[in-house]
Amino acid sequence: MKQMIEDIEVRAREELFININPIQAAGRLTPEAMKAIISYGDGYSTCDWCGKPFRLDKIRRPPISEFHVELAKFVGMDQARVVPGARRGFQAVVSSLVEKGDSVIVSSLAHYTEFLAVEDVGGVVKEVPLNEENVITGENTAQKIEKVKRETGKLPKLIMMDHFDYMLGNEHDIHGVAKVAKDYDISFLANCAYSMGVMPINGREMSADFLVGSGHKSFASPAPSGIVATTDEWADKVFRTTQMVGDVTGRKFGIKEVEMMGCTLMGANLIAMMASFPKVRERVKHWGDEVKKINYFVNEFRKIEGNKVLSEMPRKHTLTKVDTTGSFDKIAQTHKRRGFFFSDELKKRRIVGEFAGATRQWKLNTYGLTWDQIKYLTHALHDIAKKYGIN
Amino acid sequence: MKQMIEDIEVRAREELFININPIQAAGRLTPEAMKAIISYGDGYSTCDWCGKPFRLDKIRRPPISEFHVELAKFVGMDQARVVPGARRGFQAVVSSLVEKGDSVIVSSLAHYTEFLAVEDVGGVVKEVPLNEENVITGENTAQKIEKVKRETGKLPKLIMMDHFDYMLGNEHDIHGVAKVAKDYDISFLANCAYSMGVMPINGREMSADFLVGSGHKSFASPAPSGIVATTDEWADKVFRTTQMVGDVTGRKFGIKEVEMMGCTLMGANLIAMMASFPKVRERVKHWGDEVKKINYFVNEFRKIEGNKVLSEMPRKHTLTKVDTTGSFDKIAQTHKRRGFFFSDELKKRRIVGEFAGATRQWKLNTYGLTWDQIKYLTHALHDIAKKYGIN
Repeated sequence: MKQMIEDIEVRAREELFININPIQAAGRLTPEAMKAIISYGDGYSTCDWCGKPFRLDKIRRPPISEFHVELAKFVGMDQARVVPGARRGFQAVVSSLVEKGDSVIVSSLAHYTEFLAVEDVGGVVKEVPLNEENVITGENTAQKIEKVKRETGKLPKLIMMDHFDYMLGNEHDIHGVAKVAKDYDISFLANCAYSMGVMPINGREMSADFLVGSGHKSFASPAPSGIVATTDEWADKVFRTTQMVGDVTGRKFGIKEVEMMGCTLMGANLIAMMASFPKVRERVKHWGDEVKKINYFVNEFRKIEGNKVLSEMPRKHTLTKVDTTGSFDKIAQTHKRRGFFFSDELKKRRIVGEFAGATRQWKLNTYGLTWDQIKYLTHALHDIAKKYGIN
Repeated sequence: MKQMIEDIEVRAREELFININPIQAAGRLTPEAMKAIISYGDGYSTCDWCGKPFRLDKIRRPPISEFHVELAKFVGMDQARVVPGARRGFQAVVSSLVEKGDSVIVSSLAHYTEFLAVEDVGGVVKEVPLNEENVITGENTAQKIEKVKRETGKLPKLIMMDHFDYMLGNEHDIHGVAKVAKDYDISFLANCAYSMGVMPINGREMSADFLVGSGHKSFASPAPSGIVATTDEWADKVFRTTQMVGDVTGRKFGIKEVEMMGCTLMGANLIAMMASFPKVRERVKHWGDEVKKINYFVNEFRKIEGNKVLSEMPRKHTLTKVDTTGSFDKIAQTHKRRGFFFSDELKKRRIVGEFAGATRQWKLNTYGLTWDQIKYLTHALHDIAKKYGIN
């Protein structure tokens, strides 16, 4: 037991290494967020000044209430709430809209948490096929809706579509899908876990009824943290307040929102999101530079013989899936450390975050790396290739 | 906006004051937890070494997997999971067991989050009346079950009962309720949000099917964090893994648990719970001292003329509801600061955490105060009484 706790190592990979982990890049804390969690680490720290009407998102000191207003504006929606992770945002929306047996349209690259949110209420997911560029289009979405209608006799209740998917980091045709959703009068959730907080997002322009974002994935915040935003039209449904009355006591809890389970994301995580918010608002303006860096990287990367990029090209996102079956994996076949030779070589060069041991298909994310770091990373890969005789 | 962020004040009330806030006392971080959040603050920090089978509670570095095993043992259950707050534990259990229209038995002092968990799935809460000592008994629970059966033609699906309630901090007859639950073959959840982490708890001895605890309330952990534990018998239901299959891709996510939304409480909050765990295991052994201190306090408190204690006596919990209508509220009637005179006087004496402005019924929690602090607190109240001419 004592040993167990001593086994919690000091985590310093963000300080000591270049970290290309696909899911960690945009969730690194800002210095402001780090200060915030030190100050607000204690359990119910955000409740010091909670007064009427006794709900977290109404608290004015610290300015939680103002943050909620600004957050909704930032993503181009009318109302926003913070939740313990994007998955809890999917859950809130699905639980409000979908009943047992209902169909929900998702992408063939949908994140598994979208599946779970639907399964939890007894719904059924229906995947939209990718086109030949591994992108979801409005057309394919419409065809899938028609198919569901034919097979089940009912329209799907909800379309959940990833703005950028978790697997390839491809951009999907959110506008096309939104148009189809409107045509069929099906509500539409845009999963912006990989976009909200790194690039400019406007839910209204996307014609989305719901936006979901991730704090720990793309908002420089600690886990778990996430965002669910909606329009005034839908807020009454998804943020509906409790109607329960105690049959003995007559108690009511009128302002507490059912899907939020009352007060939502509290404590250090919330204050960290707030503390990171000004930098997040600023950084989305520089998304173009991030895209330039990943495109520089993939172009250099493909100069190594046998290397391939599986994500769409040119890159529109820093999350990228690559294939080194024709290069590093050939070395792994005969190396005594197998695929780990590659991790060893990267680590020697102070690079971590690739999937250890993988030398065929793997993902990386260059978000937040400086140009110097990008060039260093590129050089490191060329250097490893050269060492093992790959052209 | 800039102003908004500058308005996030440095929170220092735990350092500068004696804090008697009813919900904050047992959620203050240990120094070990504070170190943990500094080290693991970055978003997906716990995922560095995630490998097969790709689920948070299976990660061995840091020793998250071992923590889950030890946690289940600590609360006398077979399996445990961490969740973003006790409320997400209620939600997981209710969502697994309760269908639309089903009844769920709760206490007349049930926390509102129990109501919301039931409302979310379309169930109906039925409150058990308190006895004359404001305690829930097995007998009253049995009578309520009979009433529900008569009125709805069906037995309730679940009994959720608070070990200690949030309002009075009274101990309820969990053993009696558990026996009734067994007699009627209704599953039984013990809400230990105010007990798990401050006193020894054993779910098996309680004959509970489910235990729910709170990290930020009673486990020296940041919000949101909580625990849901169960028996092997129930684990397959509440921790059931996904059965979904992508209709186009054939994808399965076999090991992800539906009610946990896959990976559960991640990041800094989880590592903080782990870091606090050795001290939490130790501190529950000293619960007797905490009870002695609150009883010393309430005895001294009642020496002030007009003061009453609304919670059961002698105290079995440090969370206590008091009534000062006959003492400090009389002063408030004519004081230019009204009820805030009392807060002012406390604050002058470096005491915070009462409900500001309240001089009739209010709550306090002495958990974790030293004997010196308890005596200082007692003395401060006597001093304020004396200053305003109360005997």
